[in-house]
Amino acid sequence: MPLRVPARVHIVEVGPRDGLQIEPRTLSTADKVALIDRLSGCGALEKIEAGSFVRPDLVPQMADSQEVFRAIRRRPPIRYTGLVGNSRGAERALEAGVDEIDFSVAASETFNRRNVRKGIDESLEELRRIVALAAPGRAPAPAVPVWVTISTAFGCPYEGEVPADRVLRLAEAALEAGAAGVVLADTTGMAYPTQVGELVRQAARLAGTPRLGLHFHNTRGAGLANVLAALDAGAVRFDGSIGGIGGCPFAPGATGNVCTEDMVHMLHAMGVETGIDLSCLVETARWLEGLLGRPLPGQVMRAGPRSRRYPVPEERPRAC
Amino acid sequence: MPLRVPARVHIVEVGPRDGLQIEPRTLSTADKVALIDRLSGCGALEKIEAGSFVRPDLVPQMADSQEVFRAIRRRPPIRYTGLVGNSRGAERALEAGVDEIDFSVAASETFNRRNVRKGIDESLEELRRIVALAAPGRAPAPAVPVWVTISTAFGCPYEGEVPADRVLRLAEAALEAGAAGVVLADTTGMAYPTQVGELVRQAARLAGTPRLGLHFHNTRGAGLANVLAALDAGAVRFDGSIGGIGGCPFAPGATGNVCTEDMVHMLHAMGVETGIDLSCLVETARWLEGLLGRPLPGQVMRAGPRSRRYPVPEERPRAC
Repeated sequence: MPLRVPARVHIVEVGPRDGLQIEPRTLSTADKVALIDRLSGCGALEKIEAGSFVRPDLVPQMADSQEVFRAIRRRPPIRYTGLVGNSRGAERALEAGVDEIDFSVAASETFNRRNVRKGIDESLEELRRIVALAAPGRAPAPAVPVWVTISTAFGCPYEGEVPADRVLRLAEAALEAGAAGVVLADTTGMAYPTQVGELVRQAARLAGTPRLGLHFHNTRGAGLANVLAALDAGAVRFDGSIGGIGGCPFAPGATGNVCTEDMVHMLHAMGVETGIDLSCLVETARWLEGLLGRPLPGQVMRAGPRSRRYPVPEERPRAC
Repeated sequence: MPLRVPARVHIVEVGPRDGLQIEPRTLSTADKVALIDRLSGCGALEKIEAGSFVRPDLVPQMADSQEVFRAIRRRPPIRYTGLVGNSRGAERALEAGVDEIDFSVAASETFNRRNVRKGIDESLEELRRIVALAAPGRAPAPAVPVWVTISTAFGCPYEGEVPADRVLRLAEAALEAGAAGVVLADTTGMAYPTQVGELVRQAARLAGTPRLGLHFHNTRGAGLANVLAALDAGAVRFDGSIGGIGGCPFAPGATGNVCTEDMVHMLHAMGVETGIDLSCLVETARWLEGLLGRPLPGQVMRAGPRSRRYPVPEERPRAC
């Protein structure tokens, strides 16, 4: 049976928030805005995670998200999203004019407690409050969708394996609490392809593929293999991070999020449409590499696309 | 349909030849021997490509392969192979005591002419001479198998797309000429998963999976995704390079061969046996990184395996 790939997938660019927040060098507000505007100029990204509304003392890199949202050039139908940690953050995000709210809850109790000082049940309570705030009549109408990222969905650095049933029950609870969709996130790069295929198949039955996102890291080299396994299992929405920026505090020195342009490159090669201009993404990644002042993990930005041709040399090339 | 993965795969370590020959720093003979002996101490590698017998003026990094073969500690049933470019090289390889001969021919006429100054048909002639040399009665008995690597099997940096039919006809011709098996090589990192699945399925019908190897590069980030696609299509033999060393002169700065320990890590996570001790591979990669004096592309050597657990911190971790 050939691998199953869909005709079209939707790409969510998380670099400006998830990627930048862990970079050693903090970008200026103007550079963040320039990054987001360059990204939105590359075509049909479904969403751009443009900032977060969490405590600035905990994530100082994102303290200027309000200004970022004010200054970016909106290009519909791209939706600009912001991460929130609680209902106070959601109020700030709604004031800033986010198109969608991102909220995160871990499938591992230990991880959730360490990350947000709440149990999973308390996080679900918080989610209900956020959904209520974002509902018509409360927030600027129309309703602002709240998407829930289920972190450590493929394993937890404290607890180890996270049973698929627990992830699925949490996804169900999030949808019942009013989440517009759920994203299964491999927060510390523990996912592997057969696991991904199985969980995606089950989650898709639960949520339906339009309401199911996948978020992979390349921490152990299997990022695009996991994307492939998810595609084969029916997934059509993927997070990526320009240049592969970001990472995880649990694996210092390892690469971070799946690189958007490497993912788009693989998808296009397989004939999967994204609506995105790959060369524009690659240019943006190279520009960002200059700003961040470190070599980024993206590969296509170095090698060029597979369509790149070389002139036939006079001399025999060196050792190939 | 879940992804199909076999119970067991066979790993061929090509780092000591394919990897090292393109590294800027040339290792001493003693270090090469130490590398090979460390690798063979990590378990059931099927083969180690330990050197090449080509013109030393063209590939000076491999000029000492004869001494390397003399000094390594043989650990059967691991087979130690050497690359040859022609029958003169094959004679030297046989004298050095290789267990197998590797020979390479490109599926792209232009690439083959640039690489070895021969047309594909002339390369097949050369292959017949090499097979004759390695046959019983000529070479030290028993016969030394000759494996043929078909380079640019998934695309050529000069010609572009390489039709699958051409690759399959060449594989057939190589087997008819006496090759013990064929390896489909993605020499410059142009392969993508659906292409891999299709070609592997067809090549497996032609050669049978025990006589079919796959050799991927991670040049554009899709190395392990291509491994996954090949597994799903029935492949059971994969080349890898310790630490991900190596590369391609056509994509300077890009990563090279698929990293052996990252591949083994993904395979083990999926329950696929390799007979190899992953932590031994990781240690070897870290040791090699020290010798080569540059950060290697391997990811698991940085992040540790997915089984790695972290103590639950008192403090909230930074931005996860």
